[in-house]
Amino acid sequence: MKSDTEAKNRPYRLPTIEDVARLAGVSTATVSRSLNTPDRVREETRNAVEVAVKALGYTPNFGGQVLASRRTNTIGAIIPTMGNAIFATALQALQETLALRKVTLLVATSQYAPEQEQVQLRTMLARGVDGIALIGTERSAEAYDILTARQVPFALLWSIPDELPYLTIGFDNTRAAAEVARRVLEFGHRRIGVISGMTDGNDRATARLRGITSTLEAAGVVLGPEDVIRCHYTLEDGEAAARRLLSGADRPTALICGNDVLAAGAMRGARHLGLNIPADLSVTGFDDIDLATAVSPALTTVRVPHKRMGASAGERLLEWIDSGHQPQSLSYSAEFVFRDSLAPPSSG
Amino acid sequence: MKSDTEAKNRPYRLPTIEDVARLAGVSTATVSRSLNTPDRVREETRNAVEVAVKALGYTPNFGGQVLASRRTNTIGAIIPTMGNAIFATALQALQETLALRKVTLLVATSQYAPEQEQVQLRTMLARGVDGIALIGTERSAEAYDILTARQVPFALLWSIPDELPYLTIGFDNTRAAAEVARRVLEFGHRRIGVISGMTDGNDRATARLRGITSTLEAAGVVLGPEDVIRCHYTLEDGEAAARRLLSGADRPTALICGNDVLAAGAMRGARHLGLNIPADLSVTGFDDIDLATAVSPALTTVRVPHKRMGASAGERLLEWIDSGHQPQSLSYSAEFVFRDSLAPPSSG
Repeated sequence: MKSDTEAKNRPYRLPTIEDVARLAGVSTATVSRSLNTPDRVREETRNAVEVAVKALGYTPNFGGQVLASRRTNTIGAIIPTMGNAIFATALQALQETLALRKVTLLVATSQYAPEQEQVQLRTMLARGVDGIALIGTERSAEAYDILTARQVPFALLWSIPDELPYLTIGFDNTRAAAEVARRVLEFGHRRIGVISGMTDGNDRATARLRGITSTLEAAGVVLGPEDVIRCHYTLEDGEAAARRLLSGADRPTALICGNDVLAAGAMRGARHLGLNIPADLSVTGFDDIDLATAVSPALTTVRVPHKRMGASAGERLLEWIDSGHQPQSLSYSAEFVFRDSLAPPSSG
Repeated sequence: MKSDTEAKNRPYRLPTIEDVARLAGVSTATVSRSLNTPDRVREETRNAVEVAVKALGYTPNFGGQVLASRRTNTIGAIIPTMGNAIFATALQALQETLALRKVTLLVATSQYAPEQEQVQLRTMLARGVDGIALIGTERSAEAYDILTARQVPFALLWSIPDELPYLTIGFDNTRAAAEVARRVLEFGHRRIGVISGMTDGNDRATARLRGITSTLEAAGVVLGPEDVIRCHYTLEDGEAAARRLLSGADRPTALICGNDVLAAGAMRGARHLGLNIPADLSVTGFDDIDLATAVSPALTTVRVPHKRMGASAGERLLEWIDSGHQPQSLSYSAEFVFRDSLAPPSSG
């Protein structure tokens, strides 16, 4: 009999095939045959094995395969936040793709902080993962050094190659945001405010802002520093930014926002100031999450291929792990979606 | 030199402390001392170790500890969907709590299908996790048998004990929904429609619907089968349900919805029918996610303690894993939040 201490140290030992064999009174080879090729085993034997499997809660242990192939059958993903549906849903698509291959997903969130991402990266690698999905391309050289030194397959979502040799699965944020700015100009707006996400350490926010400002400038609409507010991607920050942008004398007739959450916040801020959307103010978003069509009027926005990026990341990472060769990067298009929140400015 | 085949089979071998020692030209004991008590090592030695650590991408390997303690330093979580911010944010709180202890989070989504949850449960257990977080109490006896046979600590979130001996960390869905119904009645509504989530296999949806119908019945408002629609928790289903409930002759003056997503969908449906909220129709939600204050008018709803449930699940599971003893269950209150979407019915 084992001592108490020993028992306490092993409370969660997984039942093994030996345990099943012992309980069923058969050999481990018979257990294995009974599970893998049941029609080659007599019914009584099969039943005995089945009962033992259920009683012990035994499941064929992938752990053994891990040791054999040096694989953990785990993919890690580090996303900025689960609070925004856009990442949560991409993560879900990734997980569903991996589940088809019995690969499980480890998840961490970095709160948009590159240094936190790096800590999580080290933890995941120390723990052992077969591959890693990250958001965006902007991070320290050290983070990339860690990844390449470990030779771990990794995919960068939401961005395009940008001269990096890595596997990217994304879309052109600059171009998509430029398209929004172009449409806003087409409707006749000239006094325009921008509510951007924080651009530090975030290549997607930087690219969107660049797309907006360069398009406006090319049309002769030059934004002053007071016309652009950078803030966190929350309703509250979007609302506060809108109130600030709309409080001046020569207030904007359109607000271009870095994502749908900021745009929904901006709409709330505008409503509180008694402004009518789109009669008094046009507002645009980015992402096309549920929120975009839940608000009224519905948001003009950009449809980000979040599910496709999540699913493709799973497929390409598994392909890389299997073949040992880095697959081709993927670039999706992000579609402009016109809805009622964008209209011509009222004359005056 | 290794053969190609050998190299191919081991592309992702984690660098070991021996590799670092070899490269730095010191003993493994010196590497260990250099990492753990750097002030006890000469600067040149420390630098040499540092260079080797960086070059190899070495991180102190938790794997060794896993074997020693039979722990995987992993907690699994199976939630219905990441599409709804309420679960995603709870998951994030859980992950942040676990990260403080260098425990990582494995994630799977069941799409509200108990049989899919059971498959994921088996996969996670086969893979090896120290504990598991699940949503709700309603699942097959077999699923509970698997969990208890394995002696894996597990926590059930979002529900209260309900006579089960398991660790639950939740709130009283029946009571919270009953409170919403009571407030709707107080405002003078008598013609009331209910848009519920699917109740099959979902104890939370069942409890909320029970809380609503029993409160209404106690006040003499008896719902017919045509007054209650069960649907999936999506904007589209909420909208379709509202259109159906509002299309009859004696249409409801209030719609009580199973969550905020359904309520936002119902508001959209009402708007399309030309109804004004709350003048023509009151709408209530449940959860108090961002969506609730992004829509206009803002939703009367119930604030679900999602972050606290996520964080507490992490704490209690780690406590259980450490002590070997199942901790006490936790019951939080869910607060009624009054906002502009609820008002008296217009006379007529």
